[in-house]
Amino acid sequence: MNERRSRRSGGRSGNMRDQSAHAIQQMPWRVPLNTDHPTEPLRPEGVAAIHDAAMRVLEEIGIEFLNAEARDYLRAGGCEVTGETVRMDRALVMEKVALAPRQFDIIPRNPARRVTMGGGHMAFVNVSSPPNAMDLDRGRRVGDFASFQDLVKLTQYFNCLHVVGGYPVEPVDIHASVRHLDCLFAKLTLTDKVVHAYSLGPERVEDVIEMARIASGLGQAEFESAPRLFTNINSSSPLKHDWPMLDGAMRFARRGQPVIVTPFTLAGAMAPVTMAGAVVQSVAEALAAIVLLQIVRPGTPVMIGTFTSNVDMRSGAPAFGTPEYVRATQMTGQMARFYGLPLRASNACASNAPDAQAMWESMNSLWSAAQAGVNLVYHAAGWLEGGLIASYEKFVMDCEVLQQFQRYFDPALTDTSPEALAVEAMAEVGPRGHFFGSSHTQSRYTTAFYAPFLSDWRNYEAWAEDGALQADQRANRIWKAILAEFDPPPMDDAIRDELADFVARRKREGGAPTDF
Amino acid sequence: MNERRSRRSGGRSGNMRDQSAHAIQQMPWRVPLNTDHPTEPLRPEGVAAIHDAAMRVLEEIGIEFLNAEARDYLRAGGCEVTGETVRMDRALVMEKVALAPRQFDIIPRNPARRVTMGGGHMAFVNVSSPPNAMDLDRGRRVGDFASFQDLVKLTQYFNCLHVVGGYPVEPVDIHASVRHLDCLFAKLTLTDKVVHAYSLGPERVEDVIEMARIASGLGQAEFESAPRLFTNINSSSPLKHDWPMLDGAMRFARRGQPVIVTPFTLAGAMAPVTMAGAVVQSVAEALAAIVLLQIVRPGTPVMIGTFTSNVDMRSGAPAFGTPEYVRATQMTGQMARFYGLPLRASNACASNAPDAQAMWESMNSLWSAAQAGVNLVYHAAGWLEGGLIASYEKFVMDCEVLQQFQRYFDPALTDTSPEALAVEAMAEVGPRGHFFGSSHTQSRYTTAFYAPFLSDWRNYEAWAEDGALQADQRANRIWKAILAEFDPPPMDDAIRDELADFVARRKREGGAPTDF
Repeated sequence: MNERRSRRSGGRSGNMRDQSAHAIQQMPWRVPLNTDHPTEPLRPEGVAAIHDAAMRVLEEIGIEFLNAEARDYLRAGGCEVTGETVRMDRALVMEKVALAPRQFDIIPRNPARRVTMGGGHMAFVNVSSPPNAMDLDRGRRVGDFASFQDLVKLTQYFNCLHVVGGYPVEPVDIHASVRHLDCLFAKLTLTDKVVHAYSLGPERVEDVIEMARIASGLGQAEFESAPRLFTNINSSSPLKHDWPMLDGAMRFARRGQPVIVTPFTLAGAMAPVTMAGAVVQSVAEALAAIVLLQIVRPGTPVMIGTFTSNVDMRSGAPAFGTPEYVRATQMTGQMARFYGLPLRASNACASNAPDAQAMWESMNSLWSAAQAGVNLVYHAAGWLEGGLIASYEKFVMDCEVLQQFQRYFDPALTDTSPEALAVEAMAEVGPRGHFFGSSHTQSRYTTAFYAPFLSDWRNYEAWAEDGALQADQRANRIWKAILAEFDPPPMDDAIRDELADFVARRKREGGAPTDF
Repeated sequence: MNERRSRRSGGRSGNMRDQSAHAIQQMPWRVPLNTDHPTEPLRPEGVAAIHDAAMRVLEEIGIEFLNAEARDYLRAGGCEVTGETVRMDRALVMEKVALAPRQFDIIPRNPARRVTMGGGHMAFVNVSSPPNAMDLDRGRRVGDFASFQDLVKLTQYFNCLHVVGGYPVEPVDIHASVRHLDCLFAKLTLTDKVVHAYSLGPERVEDVIEMARIASGLGQAEFESAPRLFTNINSSSPLKHDWPMLDGAMRFARRGQPVIVTPFTLAGAMAPVTMAGAVVQSVAEALAAIVLLQIVRPGTPVMIGTFTSNVDMRSGAPAFGTPEYVRATQMTGQMARFYGLPLRASNACASNAPDAQAMWESMNSLWSAAQAGVNLVYHAAGWLEGGLIASYEKFVMDCEVLQQFQRYFDPALTDTSPEALAVEAMAEVGPRGHFFGSSHTQSRYTTAFYAPFLSDWRNYEAWAEDGALQADQRANRIWKAILAEFDPPPMDDAIRDELADFVARRKREGGAPTDF
């Protein structure tokens, strides 16, 4: 362990926080329920056209599966396998996809942090996998375990984040053979939320599932009786699934654990330059892996992921939160509903700093997620530079905005009951009064409006007097205050010991191979 | 004239700009057509409930009209007038509102800049009326005519702005008696887009309409045969319309010129603390004035405006771009469609700096406008501090984002033609290739994706090497480059002389009274 903390059996942050004496006052834990009708740019003919094209890709062109075991499953399941290329007809695809649940829960070690994937639920995950960390004090630097732990703590702290994604920054100061052991120990002890595990080779996958089982306090059979953690695999676009991702996905499926399949289809680079074409390819790649997982274990909980964006055609650099990205996400939402699958997208941006550009791109990404009916928003807090930077300040800014989405979906905002219509209050106040002091206001004002922890709504003079701090500077103060007060959630001492012993043993055994 | 420029009969910016050798490469002039189905949080019963409540306000509580002429019109039109309070029954309201056109065009001196108000059209207006200007070099300062002219030039320059709103900053270095003369001369000569006139007393209104007529080159009758400019009036919430606004609105109506009626209903202050209640009050106040205008001249083109937001209940400060603001805008959109009226909203924010907060609040405002089917977005570029600052850098940032909305509504993004679906391109590239060099990409790449002028999509190293400029700093460079190259649109010398003579004469006469 890089960090061995004093034994404690409890912590203030284990449950819904109270609203006093903390770094910030935040909203309570709640997975927003998206009640808006989705934005649907495609008419039914458009949905049918994308479906038909995706089926033609699977039937005529095929997908490369660079994993012999996966090809064996697919062949046995009725696919046509030629070398590494697998073709499957649309009847088979639709039959297998229909086996996947439309909605499922993942239950972490603290059952109160259960998250539903599917339906109208919109859950948020911290940034995952950047190689670099950045903050205003230290600038951009290669990721390390200290930053990793900081960002895991922020993920636990913010009630608006529901899932602990992949490594919030890659801790390159820990050797790759044992990195997964230290990282999962930190995630499982510093948080009590749903955790993700990378599909990076059999040993890591088995280690991580076992650690999640130990943390849950459950026996093997009970643990595997329901989703407890999840993995996400990316296709190697175009039209290819690599060995380790497939291996991990199949291991998760065999244990009844959920798999998200997220093609990374950058239009103009690894996918067609047209957005519909990129969506077709993304859907085909995702469905191909989902068919595999339904053959491995019918009913495996899966999600379709979208990561369709475009490149800057001048430089080839990826762009995110663009108009094309928004439309691709909305179109993929229509396709996910067509197939009856829960959907994952991202809060992505290309900016190199936690500045205005970062937020206009992120807001495009988040609004597109809301409009597309996305169920799980990856990288919801902290992502910069197209995923190459985990930013402490962006993390805090994003959480401010995520809370606003949580509030946006509060039905109270559109209540049209007689009390909400307030005709009597208007009669009482009349044209010469104001509503500050009215009884209608007084009985509601403490909860009537969203209360930000980061947005500064004071007038210019008060703001300037207080240092004229911009949003990133205020966010800087906030993450420091949060880390200073952080308490980990409670964990039984015996479980903590068993986890630590597991990690120690696996380290003695040399960890996992690094030649994948 | 504070500024007397050399005579020139033409300028490069008079028409759609070409895409070379300019400060920026921008998209061509085009009013976006919003093809999305609106986001409708209210079910039909909710719309009916808000309508019924608004009608009860008009029938039972009444609205104060602080203008005797207006009350005379209303009495003659069938309303019940008691002192300054006017009550009107719902049958009368609906009969009069039905006289307003669902859609109309405003035709400025350059007919190519005609803008349709209504239908799916979504036009953008620059920031209007802040008392202060701000930029990164000079900080926040009281507005002056130099800043006014700068911001008018930016409004003309950016093709994504379609209408020249009120004063983009208040030029307090010009005496109030003649300010409207210099300001309108500047707006009419530095731009060729639709202009707005304030309803600030009879003399100003008459002067401004006459100046717009001179600029149009049309005779009185032809000028008044169609909408050529517009005004916006605000109610004095709660439940009150003031004298000068009503006077100006009636003058516009008598000449067939459009009037936007925009209550400023801050929930918890001048309106009920519940969002539905604030919307009820806003709708009632707006409809009351619209009824007046339809009595004055049946068929007067009008728009319903929404400016419903909430205050910070801790400080009383107004907040914008909040979750409550978004829902209020969406609900008002439903009501505007119910009444068959075009809708105006705003790109509002509360931030004191052109920072990340400014953009997350603005993006909430802009997305809510798109979701509500808003036809005219006021303050679309340059607004900060709840409308107290006109920011040069925010202006440029907003235009970047407005262009993205223009692109977002381009049907090409959701084209599902066989060529767009790109199955053949995928077959050609296969799992081992990439799409950069494919013929499908090569024939489309120059126009396939939105090309930003402000967003920086380079990787961190290239961006840092180039100075690590944040979005506001890059915006600062851009407005300077634009102002350095600005050329006014063409205007006939005789018209320019006539305008100047009019201004000189009215100044000799002492301008307008300042005791309104």
